[in-house]
Amino acid sequence: MKALVYGGPAKRSWEDKPNPTLQEPTDAIVRITTSTICGTDLHILKGDVPEVMAGRTLGHEGVGIVEEVGPAVRNVAVGDKVLLSCITSCGRCDYCKRTIYSHCREGGWILGRLIDGTQAEYVRIPFADTSTYKLAKDANEEAMVMLSDIFPTGYEVGVLNGAVKPGDVVAIVGAGPVGLSALLTAQLFSPAELMMIDLDPNRLEVARSFGATSTFDASKPDLVEELLEKTGDGVDVAIEAVGIPATFDLCQKIVAPGGHLANVGVHGKPVQLELQKLWIQNITLRTGLVDTYSTSQLLKMVNAGRLEPIKMVTHRFPLSDTMKAYDTFGAAAREKAIKVILQAGR
Amino acid sequence: MKALVYGGPAKRSWEDKPNPTLQEPTDAIVRITTSTICGTDLHILKGDVPEVMAGRTLGHEGVGIVEEVGPAVRNVAVGDKVLLSCITSCGRCDYCKRTIYSHCREGGWILGRLIDGTQAEYVRIPFADTSTYKLAKDANEEAMVMLSDIFPTGYEVGVLNGAVKPGDVVAIVGAGPVGLSALLTAQLFSPAELMMIDLDPNRLEVARSFGATSTFDASKPDLVEELLEKTGDGVDVAIEAVGIPATFDLCQKIVAPGGHLANVGVHGKPVQLELQKLWIQNITLRTGLVDTYSTSQLLKMVNAGRLEPIKMVTHRFPLSDTMKAYDTFGAAAREKAIKVILQAGR
Amino acid sequence: MKALVYGGPAKRSWEDKPNPTLQEPTDAIVRITTSTICGTDLHILKGDVPEVMAGRTLGHEGVGIVEEVGPAVRNVAVGDKVLLSCITSCGRCDYCKRTIYSHCREGGWILGRLIDGTQAEYVRIPFADTSTYKLAKDANEEAMVMLSDIFPTGYEVGVLNGAVKPGDVVAIVGAGPVGLSALLTAQLFSPAELMMIDLDPNRLEVARSFGATSTFDASKPDLVEELLEKTGDGVDVAIEAVGIPATFDLCQKIVAPGGHLANVGVHGKPVQLELQKLWIQNITLRTGLVDTYSTSQLLKMVNAGRLEPIKMVTHRFPLSDTMKAYDTFGAAAREKAIKVILQAGR
Amino acid sequence: MKALVYGGPAKRSWEDKPNPTLQEPTDAIVRITTSTICGTDLHILKGDVPEVMAGRTLGHEGVGIVEEVGPAVRNVAVGDKVLLSCITSCGRCDYCKRTIYSHCREGGWILGRLIDGTQAEYVRIPFADTSTYKLAKDANEEAMVMLSDIFPTGYEVGVLNGAVKPGDVVAIVGAGPVGLSALLTAQLFSPAELMMIDLDPNRLEVARSFGATSTFDASKPDLVEELLEKTGDGVDVAIEAVGIPATFDLCQKIVAPGGHLANVGVHGKPVQLELQKLWIQNITLRTGLVDTYSTSQLLKMVNAGRLEPIKMVTHRFPLSDTMKAYDTFGAAAREKAIKVILQAGR
Repeated sequence: MKALVYGGPAKRSWEDKPNPTLQEPTDAIVRITTSTICGTDLHILKGDVPEVMAGRTLGHEGVGIVEEVGPAVRNVAVGDKVLLSCITSCGRCDYCKRTIYSHCREGGWILGRLIDGTQAEYVRIPFADTSTYKLAKDANEEAMVMLSDIFPTGYEVGVLNGAVKPGDVVAIVGAGPVGLSALLTAQLFSPAELMMIDLDPNRLEVARSFGATSTFDASKPDLVEELLEKTGDGVDVAIEAVGIPATFDLCQKIVAPGGHLANVGVHGKPVQLELQKLWIQNITLRTGLVDTYSTSQLLKMVNAGRLEPIKMVTHRFPLSDTMKAYDTFGAAAREKAIKVILQAGR
Repeated sequence: MKALVYGGPAKRSWEDKPNPTLQEPTDAIVRITTSTICGTDLHILKGDVPEVMAGRTLGHEGVGIVEEVGPAVRNVAVGDKVLLSCITSCGRCDYCKRTIYSHCREGGWILGRLIDGTQAEYVRIPFADTSTYKLAKDANEEAMVMLSDIFPTGYEVGVLNGAVKPGDVVAIVGAGPVGLSALLTAQLFSPAELMMIDLDPNRLEVARSFGATSTFDASKPDLVEELLEKTGDGVDVAIEAVGIPATFDLCQKIVAPGGHLANVGVHGKPVQLELQKLWIQNITLRTGLVDTYSTSQLLKMVNAGRLEPIKMVTHRFPLSDTMKAYDTFGAAAREKAIKVILQAGR
Repeated sequence: MKALVYGGPAKRSWEDKPNPTLQEPTDAIVRITTSTICGTDLHILKGDVPEVMAGRTLGHEGVGIVEEVGPAVRNVAVGDKVLLSCITSCGRCDYCKRTIYSHCREGGWILGRLIDGTQAEYVRIPFADTSTYKLAKDANEEAMVMLSDIFPTGYEVGVLNGAVKPGDVVAIVGAGPVGLSALLTAQLFSPAELMMIDLDPNRLEVARSFGATSTFDASKPDLVEELLEKTGDGVDVAIEAVGIPATFDLCQKIVAPGGHLANVGVHGKPVQLELQKLWIQNITLRTGLVDTYSTSQLLKMVNAGRLEPIKMVTHRFPLSDTMKAYDTFGAAAREKAIKVILQAGR
Repeated sequence: MKALVYGGPAKRSWEDKPNPTLQEPTDAIVRITTSTICGTDLHILKGDVPEVMAGRTLGHEGVGIVEEVGPAVRNVAVGDKVLLSCITSCGRCDYCKRTIYSHCREGGWILGRLIDGTQAEYVRIPFADTSTYKLAKDANEEAMVMLSDIFPTGYEVGVLNGAVKPGDVVAIVGAGPVGLSALLTAQLFSPAELMMIDLDPNRLEVARSFGATSTFDASKPDLVEELLEKTGDGVDVAIEAVGIPATFDLCQKIVAPGGHLANVGVHGKPVQLELQKLWIQNITLRTGLVDTYSTSQLLKMVNAGRLEPIKMVTHRFPLSDTMKAYDTFGAAAREKAIKVILQAGR
């Protein structure tokens, strides 16, 4: 089969690899029909994720058809269309029992990182019963593949960790795919205001069309003062969806007493926490890799027509053009790309 | 009347002042029968709390007898014995309605800071209905005065914000009065292990007698490694009760994935938050000034004999010897002082 | 002044009464500009609420202008436009501190029941600081008066007690004003399905226009079976908004294992609880009189344009025609009345 | 092997049966070393649980040694000592993912009911990874076997569903094994008062020795009045641990406004719910079969020496004397039996 293979920093190729095979009774082999590329894949290519070894097939998002299952698999059967979770969960360790699937003793984020991933014609999915979701035959795959990673991430780590509730004033810093997912899923809880902050005017325009009630240029020198003036004591919920010290700092400066700061961004450096001010502010700061415990709930919302993840799709490529799709996604600002779809011939 | 008056950094005196009088219909005048000194009072004397002006009577903890009430006061009457809360709550602003009394629009921590405090023969208590608690005539005042500040602080900001639950492994960094209050109130939720960390061997010994299951010298060079080895993935709850970068850092290094870090310490400087590691750890960090929303609950526990705050009392002085009491409390390590009681002649 | 006065079962009159005067320092006198009639007022007239004495001015909903305040009132001032809460809260008793304002030791539902109410030109409001909400000068009074009672009731006792969450299947039994308020406010949490059940085809039509995803005739003989078939295991949340044994019974028969049953209806008789089936179903049943702790949040939603309570208004009368308004509201089905507005001349 | 076999109402025998064998890759075969008898087993023998067919081996509590595992079992290995949960959980269905294991699509309470149980020399355990807990070699089996059913039941369905918290006044109606388990585990949350109500003076004496702060004879004619007088507005939490209308009625009559009623009892008949009084009382009533989601937490408490389930053991029999053990347990009041241990020869 063909797969997108990491060859060390800055090296990727679309090459032949042996088809995956069942290794454990709880495995499934899935033929990929739709996949996509994540910002994290670009980080891997920059060499920022050192545990990814050369030779690894990338990708942790996908929809496909089950081709083969181990004898202990009960939830899905050969021929089923399934959504693949970016998080592999064994369903039986102490972390899984506490629904912290991201820290599963045998799983967590391993797809396209520690084991071969989904930007390929076939993929082996460990613990298939607890790491996939059966879809209807006619499910919209492009919408569904958004639920592999970015929607649960924006929803769980941003919206639910931020405890967004009706009437809240919410600020989201970063209008990339995950920030926009937080923007769409925050609306499930009817905040009064949804402020979006980013450097890219195009993304802010997208944010307005996705329901942001106001948008702000992140480079404005007096942004903190402006936001505090608009909100009185600050925002009820600040969601950090970038992953650098400056955006974290913005969040800690605009969160109101009693407020919530939900960190979604992947950080490479420490940040300075202004504890000399915040110790007295009764705030709650949460961090987290996505657990994907919300995937079933999000599926229900999409099926009920109350959430439209397909809005995120800006570009489509045949799976065989994955190399070209990376070129486009790697120049997201110029290409006005949010999510690029990889479609296998069917 | 006599009062302990702040005269600017490093200056304090026991001097004559006019008796306080009713200013608002919601005020009460209380004759102090028992008071105490808080670590924060020492901070004020160091000049660390610049909003405290020379001439201010210090003290935000006390038990006394109501001498006079404004016409709108309904919960307490002349002659009642009352516990004074360190937090003044108007009971009607947006923060009070959300039980964030510490950020009350007209109150919060004002006693002994923005208005005259409790280390005096008489004190004016604003919003008496929502800032005092009626006690039985024969209530043990020395036990009760511990509920003005340190017990609700350790309990709310440490134990409840840290979400201590049965079976947890809890580490408390700092065995001062507030850390020890957290130690005693954490036991209300039956953690499996209660580890206490401090520099002072005497306080660690006290901690063991108060229920710590193990104690650690904070100066040990390999303390983080030792704690991680003992606990596997780290502690479920880390409570910071010192207020300096080193102790915060210890807490962030020993908290397990999915764990809680409750900051109780009063910080004067920023800290470095290791977000490059913690972003993936699914932790919850909370800060807070005490709201004293738990005072009624703590009173019930003391009355039921299930909590013994009087254990904290190591020294007793007549109120007229408040200057001497400060000398002793200011040399707490040498004097093995935890809480010093100030008793008015009755 | 003029007022709608209860004269014993089935007797009401629009008659002269002395203007109310301040009795406590926490009182306010409010000139009513907008009021309305509640289903409970009809119950009183039937003699179902025996504690209401002849001579009582009815009404517990209203918007008005503050004419006079006692010396301890701080949140509102003469000339302010205010929303009156149907629940009077002292803000200082044990129940108020736990936000169970409905059981306030000196308040609760007293307006138009134990003290004179709001269907009058003037009303005395006890504990004005904690029982009124200041409105903008140009606030839409007809929308706001819906927040005196029915919206917080539907929201708190139905939606929040029922723990409605994104993706849920929710059934509301009873499409009267409170059931319809639950229908509108349930949408703040984005359920996947909102099923409305009533006998009146007109109200079911209104329900569809208010966002119900399906509606059902309550008289269908096989309704339980039909609902169970549609939902698989039953509904996640059943909201009872009628108050008779048959509708409660429907709710207990259609709630799924792990589901919630929120009782909003005012019951005059015991019901049979099928505990021989439900003991094993892991359900949560909640009851409650409204506390109005959510009023501020609902005001924010209305101000942000995310909730439109004015949709409930079907009829308008001058305050001086209150007798006629009662005739219309008393024949709600025939008149297709949901809420009737009483407008004072301004 | 030998097993205790149900032969239809009132018929039981200790007889030969074929040893169980692996049927699914997720199964384990366990050699029973310690078992016990539950009140439910007596109900089965009365014919109250019609789905139990003649020929069924009874028992859903046990500790044993793993003899054989299917190829998909990962958490436990041959030779491990394990605690068997009374609830079988597949770990992968929609209910299991919501931790409602009692309603597992392929499990729930099936041991000794729909499949052969633990009062036998060997038992087949489906979904062994998610239905057993590995114990230390030297674990006290008599203590541990209490965690198969009664401790999680008293804790989850009584204490946690009842939301017991520090300072609460708690009443437990029924001092049988489950009521006593609720009594012991309620103390993990430090209520101020723990009132125990039963007909049997011996059990009330046991309750006092287990930490009840007061006990009451359930047959007293004026018991409701006495309890309301003692508690003011009623109890914060009422736990029903009998399962008949009279005891449920007592609970609904003594629960305070804002309080919790947790039903643990297994009911065979409907009860009358006094909704005409309770609709206004803001109460929360919960029902439930145990999910055993708390078993790990309880194990930690026992291992930390903070919970002593072995206190429940009053009688011990060799497994081969199971018939005699039933005679004793069936006459619990006369024999002063709480839990009877069945010990296999080792």
